[in-house]
Amino acid sequence: MAVGDLSLPVMHPVDGIRIGIAEAGIRYRNRRDLVVFELCEGANTAAVFTTNAFCAAPVQLAKTHLQQSPARYLLINTGNANAGTGAKGMDAAIRSCQQLSSMTAVPASAVLPFSTGVIGEQLPVDRLISGLPNALNDLSAENWEAAASGIMTTDTLPKGASEQFELDGIRYTVTGISKGAGMIRPNMATMLAYVATDVAVDAALLQALLRDVVESSFNRITIDGDTSTNDACVLVATGRAGNAIVTSEKTALYEALRVVLARVFQRLAQLIVRDGEGATKFMTVQVEGGASTQECCDVAYAVAHSPLIKTAFFASDPNWGRILAAIGRSGVPDLDVSQIFVWLDDVLLCENGGAAESYTEALGAAVMQKPEITIRIALGRGEFNDTVWTCDLSYDYVKINADYRS
Amino acid sequence: MAVGDLSLPVMHPVDGIRIGIAEAGIRYRNRRDLVVFELCEGANTAAVFTTNAFCAAPVQLAKTHLQQSPARYLLINTGNANAGTGAKGMDAAIRSCQQLSSMTAVPASAVLPFSTGVIGEQLPVDRLISGLPNALNDLSAENWEAAASGIMTTDTLPKGASEQFELDGIRYTVTGISKGAGMIRPNMATMLAYVATDVAVDAALLQALLRDVVESSFNRITIDGDTSTNDACVLVATGRAGNAIVTSEKTALYEALRVVLARVFQRLAQLIVRDGEGATKFMTVQVEGGASTQECCDVAYAVAHSPLIKTAFFASDPNWGRILAAIGRSGVPDLDVSQIFVWLDDVLLCENGGAAESYTEALGAAVMQKPEITIRIALGRGEFNDTVWTCDLSYDYVKINADYRS
Repeated sequence: MAVGDLSLPVMHPVDGIRIGIAEAGIRYRNRRDLVVFELCEGANTAAVFTTNAFCAAPVQLAKTHLQQSPARYLLINTGNANAGTGAKGMDAAIRSCQQLSSMTAVPASAVLPFSTGVIGEQLPVDRLISGLPNALNDLSAENWEAAASGIMTTDTLPKGASEQFELDGIRYTVTGISKGAGMIRPNMATMLAYVATDVAVDAALLQALLRDVVESSFNRITIDGDTSTNDACVLVATGRAGNAIVTSEKTALYEALRVVLARVFQRLAQLIVRDGEGATKFMTVQVEGGASTQECCDVAYAVAHSPLIKTAFFASDPNWGRILAAIGRSGVPDLDVSQIFVWLDDVLLCENGGAAESYTEALGAAVMQKPEITIRIALGRGEFNDTVWTCDLSYDYVKINADYRS
Repeated sequence: MAVGDLSLPVMHPVDGIRIGIAEAGIRYRNRRDLVVFELCEGANTAAVFTTNAFCAAPVQLAKTHLQQSPARYLLINTGNANAGTGAKGMDAAIRSCQQLSSMTAVPASAVLPFSTGVIGEQLPVDRLISGLPNALNDLSAENWEAAASGIMTTDTLPKGASEQFELDGIRYTVTGISKGAGMIRPNMATMLAYVATDVAVDAALLQALLRDVVESSFNRITIDGDTSTNDACVLVATGRAGNAIVTSEKTALYEALRVVLARVFQRLAQLIVRDGEGATKFMTVQVEGGASTQECCDVAYAVAHSPLIKTAFFASDPNWGRILAAIGRSGVPDLDVSQIFVWLDDVLLCENGGAAESYTEALGAAVMQKPEITIRIALGRGEFNDTVWTCDLSYDYVKINADYRS
């Protein structure tokens, strides 16, 4: 049911990164559910995590470890989120890091753990640990595609993006993967995503860069408004490309990298929405003329979260009254509805807060047949714009979440 | 699909109120879609309305009229919301009030108009007006049940409540009706509801009393989180019971009336949730131990709006991890998850933020078989409690909103 072309591009290896995948039988048999990233010595790692107060044990531990040592391994399991699991869950996360640490002769704090899957069940840590030797044996720079499959839960397809660019005679690479299809409304954080580059970037600058590109990508998508307990996004800079380390935003290489990263992150974020649980339509909600970024986002999310709008899009019904109702309840103070214009792609639905003179049901119905549609809303209040991506709400969303314990 | 017993009780007439119903063919043929309430001279009328900025033309006009004259008629149509209809919609609302005014020799401002149905289409005001003679011919004190049917849209059943009580030898009556099944998250307002009593109550006190009982009834329900453009709730006190007019909260009659009204309003609000679009389960979300009413409501609504929780309840799956995730993203500042306890009815799911020792899947599954379930959440932060009512999210919600243009 995924919307659009989600096929993986050529996934360029990133010098300094090797990946191993194994079957650990965390939740299902015959499923590659364990992924280990090996990062070269000297790599800088930036990360952002979920703001959910019930954040999972591995999220808490990864945050602590990041403060203590440079990261050398990312240890990721699917099938179990190790969230809502109390002290026992934390012990399991610690043990899994210790085990990988003893097998690789790095400090336990150099291992960052990540889990995704069902919430509230104990992680079968012995099974996870018994899968580690196979994962380490599998380590290869060529394994990005297999890793994209290895971190999937209700995803129907692996998700990846990869780009190369040249500057001053050096060729640089950015490659990343993401997963997620439900419980998606990353809030100052993101779902699982792992992106690496061979550019050498100062650690603090890398963290700032990550926050910047996450803000316009993973922090602008929603499927069902439910922020996960396990969201995490990691950006690794291995420094193997051979450039002089980037320490300032005011360099050509920083700017070139930022542009490529922004595109890769946006692609990875949109892939999650395109593969949203039960999705049949990919919707871009574009709000312009707001008095602040906040109110643009408030309006965009009111629209993007409305079950009535999402079901209407599933039915290809240009029921624009529901869009007006969502704008009206978005909480923007002193909203003057007579200033509001709304378009579906290029079809003007609503002008000055009422039905557009030029609008006909046939025009709206024609746009609604498309799998990818932009809802554009002009507020007429100021100079701010923002965009959120979401998908429709179909029978299959209910089916997936009623049948599957994710 | 309605949950529980929604049958109408004996609908006691309220002295001073007559109701007429007619077929006006607003949207469908052979459907009684026009309801007129006649209020006796001297009746006091209180009302609250939607906070949606795109509030409908009749909502705007009813607010204005309430300031100008004592209300003598309520004019209600279903099939068309007259919202998002601009100046033409306002003209239609004004014309319908003028017509009823000329037929009944009251000022136009003594008529309060209400519309419900599809948003964004022009009200067929000529058809509405041509239905008025039949509605007036039909006026009767006995028509509460027919009125409850006459205001339905996607409702599957008419909704009403009626009680009588005695004080100091006088028998008093409270009778009311409500409608609504989708686009339900009344926000400082409510869906359509009309309640009358024969108690004589001072107008300002009546408005305060209405706000009080709405806060704990219509302002505590949600079906899909979508606040309507047309919500309105009206409370009429005809004063025909013969009591000395109530002018203070510190009287036995005020207190007796408040208790009965609170019960009637809560019943009318819960009936809307029980008949929620596609509902198969009625869920009470009870939050205790909060540091404020606001945070109790934030937690309760995060749970009540979560599509993941609602689909799990539809599937009778005690997937309590989704409840923790919703609590965690509710935005309560500095939430200490180790203080949190969660019950499904009397089954403890979660203690100190993790799985309860005593919990088994069989215990959770047994509760989940029931059609009515209480989710109780203890935050351990303070002395505030609050309760919100909602329903599950089923295939039929998608079907109703994908197939029907409401």
